[in-house]
Amino acid sequence: MLSTQISEKLISIVGKENFDDSQVGRLVYSYDASPQYQSMPDAVVSPRNTEEVSKILRFCNKNKVPIVPRGSGTNLCAGTTPTEGGIVLLFKHMNQILEIDEDNLTVTVQPGTITIDLIKAVEAKGLFYPPDPSSMSISTIGGNLNENSGGLRGLKYGVTRDYVLAIEAVLPNGDIIRTGGKLAKDVAGYDLTRLFVGSEGTLGIITEATLKLIPMPETKKTLLALYQNLDAAARSVSKIISNKIIPATLEFLDQPTLEAVEDFAKIGLPTNVKAVLLIEQDGPPEVVERDMEMIAAICREEDAESVEIAKDEKTAELLSAARRSALSALARLKPTTILEDATVPRSEIAKMVNAIEKIAEKYDVKICTFGHAGDGNLHPTCPTDIRDQEEMERVEKAFEEIFAVAIDLGGTITGEHGVGLVKAPYLEWKLGPEGIAAMHSIKHAFDPNNIMNPGKMFAKESRKRVVVAR
Amino acid sequence: MLSTQISEKLISIVGKENFDDSQVGRLVYSYDASPQYQSMPDAVVSPRNTEEVSKILRFCNKNKVPIVPRGSGTNLCAGTTPTEGGIVLLFKHMNQILEIDEDNLTVTVQPGTITIDLIKAVEAKGLFYPPDPSSMSISTIGGNLNENSGGLRGLKYGVTRDYVLAIEAVLPNGDIIRTGGKLAKDVAGYDLTRLFVGSEGTLGIITEATLKLIPMPETKKTLLALYQNLDAAARSVSKIISNKIIPATLEFLDQPTLEAVEDFAKIGLPTNVKAVLLIEQDGPPEVVERDMEMIAAICREEDAESVEIAKDEKTAELLSAARRSALSALARLKPTTILEDATVPRSEIAKMVNAIEKIAEKYDVKICTFGHAGDGNLHPTCPTDIRDQEEMERVEKAFEEIFAVAIDLGGTITGEHGVGLVKAPYLEWKLGPEGIAAMHSIKHAFDPNNIMNPGKMFAKESRKRVVVAR
Repeated sequence: MLSTQISEKLISIVGKENFDDSQVGRLVYSYDASPQYQSMPDAVVSPRNTEEVSKILRFCNKNKVPIVPRGSGTNLCAGTTPTEGGIVLLFKHMNQILEIDEDNLTVTVQPGTITIDLIKAVEAKGLFYPPDPSSMSISTIGGNLNENSGGLRGLKYGVTRDYVLAIEAVLPNGDIIRTGGKLAKDVAGYDLTRLFVGSEGTLGIITEATLKLIPMPETKKTLLALYQNLDAAARSVSKIISNKIIPATLEFLDQPTLEAVEDFAKIGLPTNVKAVLLIEQDGPPEVVERDMEMIAAICREEDAESVEIAKDEKTAELLSAARRSALSALARLKPTTILEDATVPRSEIAKMVNAIEKIAEKYDVKICTFGHAGDGNLHPTCPTDIRDQEEMERVEKAFEEIFAVAIDLGGTITGEHGVGLVKAPYLEWKLGPEGIAAMHSIKHAFDPNNIMNPGKMFAKESRKRVVVAR
Repeated sequence: MLSTQISEKLISIVGKENFDDSQVGRLVYSYDASPQYQSMPDAVVSPRNTEEVSKILRFCNKNKVPIVPRGSGTNLCAGTTPTEGGIVLLFKHMNQILEIDEDNLTVTVQPGTITIDLIKAVEAKGLFYPPDPSSMSISTIGGNLNENSGGLRGLKYGVTRDYVLAIEAVLPNGDIIRTGGKLAKDVAGYDLTRLFVGSEGTLGIITEATLKLIPMPETKKTLLALYQNLDAAARSVSKIISNKIIPATLEFLDQPTLEAVEDFAKIGLPTNVKAVLLIEQDGPPEVVERDMEMIAAICREEDAESVEIAKDEKTAELLSAARRSALSALARLKPTTILEDATVPRSEIAKMVNAIEKIAEKYDVKICTFGHAGDGNLHPTCPTDIRDQEEMERVEKAFEEIFAVAIDLGGTITGEHGVGLVKAPYLEWKLGPEGIAAMHSIKHAFDPNNIMNPGKMFAKESRKRVVVAR
């Protein structure tokens, strides 16, 4: 509970209508898309502009009130759960697209802007903002920036980080800083822009961002390749890339995922195959045509059972939408869905998928795997039930082992979902104590009172590495 | 001078043959490509591996001995001058290309690798490493990483930062950290990779890097457009981009630069025009063909006096080499050459070039301007003589005013050369005291004893902003 004095001060900054400490108001923001981490905030505060954010941070810093910035709460790492209480900061008043600059190919936005709104607004002008997290129809740009969100188009186009040219951010001491500009090149000092991107709200609050746009690709084609053999699918992925074709998306779905997706989307996907690759290429028509032919040939050479290029845009759109619905589809299977994003070098995908299968067997849990095969960014997903404590322990152990295998294969514990609370205990496996110490020194330099999203990224305790039996 | 004890300890780490405190040995590393900042180091030390780097840093940190890491010293910001003494660290033993991974499209290198050697090695395998600073035939990758080097291909392909997937670095306390991996996506913690890229050796020593490669473009064409009117050239640049064509390079040269370049390269460039655009496009043949036609049409529409597509590869190569020789060519005009890289949003190039002309007139100095017009990254260059103190003062004032104009136009004091000593006093103009404080807190967190390249980036005193009269 906040003291009356603290509540009153916050109200004096944002106005009564933008401060909510009612039971129901707080309940709404006590959880995000990650199961198991519900926790009540003391209040929910909605600043109207950067100056108010600055006042809030300065005040909370003095009074050591935790601040959890939150977009739509679609993250899967418990990145926005207020586990140490304090205030949840909403950006519903700071949700404008401020400018689309067609000369400099930039868009300037406030953090509360919904990702899809931004994408549609720039596409209306023939421009393209590639980062496309699966949650983009409800996620905010502020959330995308804080998590450095990826998406399906990461392979060819990169992730959120690669499109941020400038930010305005408020530091815990209330300072407002501005980094970068509408500039293709800027090396004036440390790269604070990218330090903030992916910092999960632990360093300050991003209050504005200028993002890079590129010309909209002229055309797009989609191909579906079906396999009865996992390794064949993985080999196709490697061979496409080593043939120097970089598709816009190169998605993988295993049989259980496929079944769930078809049951959800009902578009006639085959469910009796071991694996599917969904491949899109975009660009000038001649190039797309040529690439798709080569991709189809490679898939066939690598024993695809069937290779089909979507006959029209509508079919392509259905396939793409079906893939994007994977989490929703899998979430229908059981009360709880745990979706991870262990990521490995592209060349190690087959090993990783096989290891996931074995680990699932070993711990007797169901794990469906899909993801961005071209990026080596897999989403092993476990439909389970948090009320079944015994099973949950097995699930936890299975994921621990999955993280360990990913790291042993030269990978990482999280490709695009962030660390948050969920993966904080495993971060040291990836970075070593020296890496954690280096990151912690940055955290301490910016936020000595640990008010910014406390508990996230830095775990109170690291887990011991499991011994991986393969 | 280092004490005998310190010298002996350093010798015990790297071996006698890798420690040099002779007068002549130190003299060689007392300056870099930036005039006016010569200063003697106390010794020159060449570690053989990461462990030795770690031992050196730990020892120097305890004993507060400054360390200046140095590649080939081609930087233009006095980034590698040992102005506070201490040791210069060379990477002549750590200069290997460790691996080219064709499945994952990566190359792993040691910092002493010469940029062009890396580029040629990957091109031999049909792969492409785009960052191409003009100094690439002698610069090292370590230097490129520390300065976040740009180049001619930045417009379409980005800068060094955009190609770094992983680094190994040694911190001042001797800790060895490893960031990232052969991973298209990795969000495990803060982006230390990009914090180190462009940190100018002020945070630690990069001892290894894994860089992203892309498929080699199939073909390339080059076009030369001549203008009698500066604004027409600038309008062409804007119009090309707003027509959604992103050329591989889009270079600008003014008349005095053109004259110097032709005098140097003798390839028959016209010298009686006000401005030249040198435009390259690469990619699939159909696309290059189409883009070049559109670009040529736009240049003609915008009053280019002549538009010519290079008839063959050899001619194209000559044009490109001539452009890359601009600094060498201008350096022949006078004993001292001061080359800057004020950068503005692309839409502001005409204003910036006009402002530079007026400023040169006002202070009665010669300034030749060329640069990456597509990036808004201009290189106003002043042929002068450091022995003429009175003129040098006018030169300094002129550049001060150029920086001020760049910032007023939404630009930056350095697009790709770095801050170093040269631009440290102006950094606050770009970042404000809050931005400087934030960066300084990072510096202090990593390097509390200020042993890493001291004096660079953070100035002892900031200059006052000049009042810009336009």
